[in-house]
Amino acid sequence: MPPGFPELFRLGDGWEALHMLDQARLPGEECHVALRSAVDVARSIRTLQVRGAPAIGIAGALGLALELRRLARAGTAPAPEAARQAHDLLFAARPTGRNLGWGLRRVLEAFLDGYESDPGGSVDRACDAALGVWEGEVRRCRSIGEHALEVIPDAGATILLHCNAGALATGGLGTATAPLYLAHEQGRTLRAFAGETRPVLQGARLTAWELSRAGIPVTVVTDSMAGALMASGVVDLVIVGADAVAPDGTVVNKIGTYGLAVLADYHAVPFYVAAPSTTLEPRLEAMDIPVEERDDTEVRSCGDRLLVPPDASVWNPAFDRTPPHLITAILTEAGILRPPFAPRLRTLAQDTPGALPDG
Amino acid sequence: MPPGFPELFRLGDGWEALHMLDQARLPGEECHVALRSAVDVARSIRTLQVRGAPAIGIAGALGLALELRRLARAGTAPAPEAARQAHDLLFAARPTGRNLGWGLRRVLEAFLDGYESDPGGSVDRACDAALGVWEGEVRRCRSIGEHALEVIPDAGATILLHCNAGALATGGLGTATAPLYLAHEQGRTLRAFAGETRPVLQGARLTAWELSRAGIPVTVVTDSMAGALMASGVVDLVIVGADAVAPDGTVVNKIGTYGLAVLADYHAVPFYVAAPSTTLEPRLEAMDIPVEERDDTEVRSCGDRLLVPPDASVWNPAFDRTPPHLITAILTEAGILRPPFAPRLRTLAQDTPGALPDG
Repeated sequence: MPPGFPELFRLGDGWEALHMLDQARLPGEECHVALRSAVDVARSIRTLQVRGAPAIGIAGALGLALELRRLARAGTAPAPEAARQAHDLLFAARPTGRNLGWGLRRVLEAFLDGYESDPGGSVDRACDAALGVWEGEVRRCRSIGEHALEVIPDAGATILLHCNAGALATGGLGTATAPLYLAHEQGRTLRAFAGETRPVLQGARLTAWELSRAGIPVTVVTDSMAGALMASGVVDLVIVGADAVAPDGTVVNKIGTYGLAVLADYHAVPFYVAAPSTTLEPRLEAMDIPVEERDDTEVRSCGDRLLVPPDASVWNPAFDRTPPHLITAILTEAGILRPPFAPRLRTLAQDTPGALPDG
Repeated sequence: MPPGFPELFRLGDGWEALHMLDQARLPGEECHVALRSAVDVARSIRTLQVRGAPAIGIAGALGLALELRRLARAGTAPAPEAARQAHDLLFAARPTGRNLGWGLRRVLEAFLDGYESDPGGSVDRACDAALGVWEGEVRRCRSIGEHALEVIPDAGATILLHCNAGALATGGLGTATAPLYLAHEQGRTLRAFAGETRPVLQGARLTAWELSRAGIPVTVVTDSMAGALMASGVVDLVIVGADAVAPDGTVVNKIGTYGLAVLADYHAVPFYVAAPSTTLEPRLEAMDIPVEERDDTEVRSCGDRLLVPPDASVWNPAFDRTPPHLITAILTEAGILRPPFAPRLRTLAQDTPGALPDG
């Protein structure tokens, strides 16, 4: 990758620390924090120093392994009970995190499996499992990018992105950003527009930062400008990420994704969803649950500025749902899925070891 | 109107001051500034203490009359040259303001007409003309509201608004907000959603403030939530304002209007444009001029917070264009215009004395 490509995680020698890019300070400051225990990592998840489901999963898995290594180094070879406690402490930092729960479980199981017969090797096995979680995300991102390269025009492509489904969210090339990074690496010319993604502004703060760091020209627009931008004819395609993909192809993603899909449909701009198999939701009923509403202060203020008068209400849904007929294709690590999505998603879920188990 | 209805302008006895609501401080603080000269009024226009084309036109007209009255009171009965200087000073505060130029011209002409035969009455005539500009806006707003009441469901209407085409922009009931205020006055139940309208946030800061002040329940959403909101089925209609309406019915308005129109079309939600005859643009070619791009700092930061990394570009168009086929009807002071718009707009322009002359 280009020299400026963001390095999200770096492990210190002997697992003494996880050096992690502090995303809460971007784009104003660029610094890594040194996390030395499960408590440190749990705090970093809660304070949004790390965000993006895959990245949180990696941080949790590395954090659990690092904690076990720390206990071993301190002389108290960790017992299963201590491993379970560290697991629970990290899981409590984001109990709704699908990838976090999955990553932690893999590390804990690696530690416990064979503990009876070989307790001395358990920490090593936990560390290997944590590296496996990390490498799995990196590999899935690259595969998405390699497959999705074919949807990027050979030269002069202009791609509209939303939120941050990028390197900062995954520890690899990102999902929605992976084809851009690979095309750039190949020397193709391209440019991106990043929708700012109110209220938390991940597009402006994070996507614009990582693309410009990597040398890809990027222009930030407010979410309200997407229509005029598409009408101007400059957008060749839209790529968004996915928090969850239902068995029928309905995509749950950051609020604003659905509106972009409608606009893309109206302007005949291809609309792609980058979704590793870990985002496949096996139960259709799971899509019926109400969308999480986040704290209204996210909309009411920005920096030191009060934006909304106290007498007015605020609606702040975190996600929206995009129906499959608005989606051109789903970009996965196993290939590009085109409609009809249902049978192809079923096959993918069956064939892909990376897919998260139900629940 | 309800007791809380915002009072935008208040004239002190004998024109010694124009007390104007300081919109730059909303919604955090609610206070009126006392403007005592053309210099004061010009500064208030430049610093956005007053915004909205009609309101700026009123402020300019009242400011010119107030300046002439001030000169007369100070003992130096104003000569035509002084009146022209004050006119030019005020016009320079916003040279692109159609309503400002028109309002100032009316006051200056009233002063000059008959100056030769009756110089002593010129200041009175200028003041009457300024009050006429103000009353004309107030009257046009009320007429828009009275005609447009028929598009508001009798009970439980939910209306999505964009930007601020409200009382704060006009000195009257507003244009897009006028039917809401009149329906509320009649005791009908209704509620509004205000799109926050990045980057300058007029929806969150101003529309939410004036509606909640007047007792109309209002909920702020980010611009990216409009799609999910319409998909949820709660929106009965959308009403937006207009900066200019072309002879074919194309509407130039705040960035984001076009995207809302596409979303409304997709969800079969009626999309109305409130446009007094003063916004009719007589020349179709005028619609071809490039859209003004505003300073990128509006997008790059909010309050004390840097949102966009310095290496990323920003696109910040002030307006977009909505084609007539996406517009259900245009709400004017002469009635509701439905498609085909071209012949009806032509008739309106010919019949309406309020329409601004060409240029």
